[in-house]
Amino acid sequence: METPGTNVAVLGLGAMGQALAAAFLGAGHRTTVWNRTTGKAKSLVEGGAHEAATVEQAVAAAPLVVVCLLDNAVVTDVLAGTDVAGRTVVNLTNGTPRQARELAESFACRGAEYVDGGIMAVPPGIGTDQALLLYSGSQPAFDRYRDTLAVLGTPQFLGTEPGLAALSDLALLTGMYGLFGGALQAFALAGSGGVAARDFVPMLQQWLAAMATNLPRFAEEIDTGDYATGVVSNLAMQAAAFPNLIHVSREQGLRPDLLMPLHALMTERVAGGHGAEDFTGIVELIRTPEENK
Amino acid sequence: METPGTNVAVLGLGAMGQALAAAFLGAGHRTTVWNRTTGKAKSLVEGGAHEAATVEQAVAAAPLVVVCLLDNAVVTDVLAGTDVAGRTVVNLTNGTPRQARELAESFACRGAEYVDGGIMAVPPGIGTDQALLLYSGSQPAFDRYRDTLAVLGTPQFLGTEPGLAALSDLALLTGMYGLFGGALQAFALAGSGGVAARDFVPMLQQWLAAMATNLPRFAEEIDTGDYATGVVSNLAMQAAAFPNLIHVSREQGLRPDLLMPLHALMTERVAGGHGAEDFTGIVELIRTPEENK
Repeated sequence: METPGTNVAVLGLGAMGQALAAAFLGAGHRTTVWNRTTGKAKSLVEGGAHEAATVEQAVAAAPLVVVCLLDNAVVTDVLAGTDVAGRTVVNLTNGTPRQARELAESFACRGAEYVDGGIMAVPPGIGTDQALLLYSGSQPAFDRYRDTLAVLGTPQFLGTEPGLAALSDLALLTGMYGLFGGALQAFALAGSGGVAARDFVPMLQQWLAAMATNLPRFAEEIDTGDYATGVVSNLAMQAAAFPNLIHVSREQGLRPDLLMPLHALMTERVAGGHGAEDFTGIVELIRTPEENK
Repeated sequence: METPGTNVAVLGLGAMGQALAAAFLGAGHRTTVWNRTTGKAKSLVEGGAHEAATVEQAVAAAPLVVVCLLDNAVVTDVLAGTDVAGRTVVNLTNGTPRQARELAESFACRGAEYVDGGIMAVPPGIGTDQALLLYSGSQPAFDRYRDTLAVLGTPQFLGTEPGLAALSDLALLTGMYGLFGGALQAFALAGSGGVAARDFVPMLQQWLAAMATNLPRFAEEIDTGDYATGVVSNLAMQAAAFPNLIHVSREQGLRPDLLMPLHALMTERVAGGHGAEDFTGIVELIRTPEENK
């Protein structure tokens, strides 16, 4: 029986690897799977996947090798002795921009095309509209497999610099954790006055959505380095009001830990003579390496 | 000449007080203004406002007294000797829930009705759809002046506990600063790899909007205290991946200060045996007073 679509190999069958393989299978691609330890492939094999006994067999089975392992040290280790010439390696393992550049160079030397990727989704989101996947590296390889990769989630190609996907992935997570940390502290503060989180959340969501409309202005200020034009609420005013957030958190019996470093940065920036400028100038401090502090 | 609408007095003519008075004037309310130092009322008077020579005269001129001073110590001080009996005091000064409760009690003793408020806007936003104003305290007083107050921005009454507006105001700001701090760190990280903030911001906004849809689930978990049901990406997995954000920030030459306390809380919560639960359980640590750590 002939299977339509692309032959694809999936290396690594953790929760995410299994979700990736299931999405390829569901879209009708002949899918070969491999995992370092056995027993992870059962439901995929029942769904039509082929289980490779070795990583060499998996790579030999498909021109498109999708990798999702614990980390990039494992990627290097697992594929160390394998002939990857002529293959396209799409590495969706969590890693750093530097690792992506090193892997791209290494795989190029071995005759493979390399695309690094970042998955902006949890495993249950794979194959849905909610999933965003960032890619960078070989543009021809990405273009060739764009439609195949699109079954995992919306593919976005960021450029040929292999580290761009990892960098953007980590930057988005950084933004997310800011949002989440702020939300937890906000829920705790509301709750300390008897306001249930479920009663507070509509107002919080509306407010955060409104505040997020400031981000394009922030971006312009950061790109131009002009933090002084069009200031509405200057940093000195904000830095003067900020301790109230910390004070009230403590007064309400809460730990203010999450609030402390932003206050320190605001204070440092004001002390540096930038109080009349916008909040966004803090990015200049973030960009100052710690050894230069 | 008879002026339609409510007679209103505005105490305090900083940037916000001036914006409030201008909005009342613009809506046709007879507006009396007062400031501790002279010279702030000029453009308002040119626009039809009456300037009171003393705070007593201002309060005598209008049944609705809107207060927007530097802080609540100044509010107490300024109104200490003034007869406020029969007046409704709407205090929009930045303050704490505890101060709001104390002021409500004090003004009630003196025969005034007290409404505390929080302004979720910058001065140029006053009088536009963008402004949200939170109120708490005397419900009859709020109901009586709801339409008058609506000229400042969308009024939202949170309850008769006078501290609710200040608490919610501070909680919203807490959430906002989480969002903003995360965004600055994200812009810095993207920028470290040559990605301009203006190129990164559409992706960041889309991602944060998607992530904000998690907040109602967070709220449910926080309200129920059930952090263990329906976990998709458990805290231990997130805590294991989080150091990569710190590591890459440093590798890219950035200060990771803003990332540190959330990592510490994640680690502490995992060490407490809650690694298999959801991220939201961190709120239990935030609720632990520092002296009990």
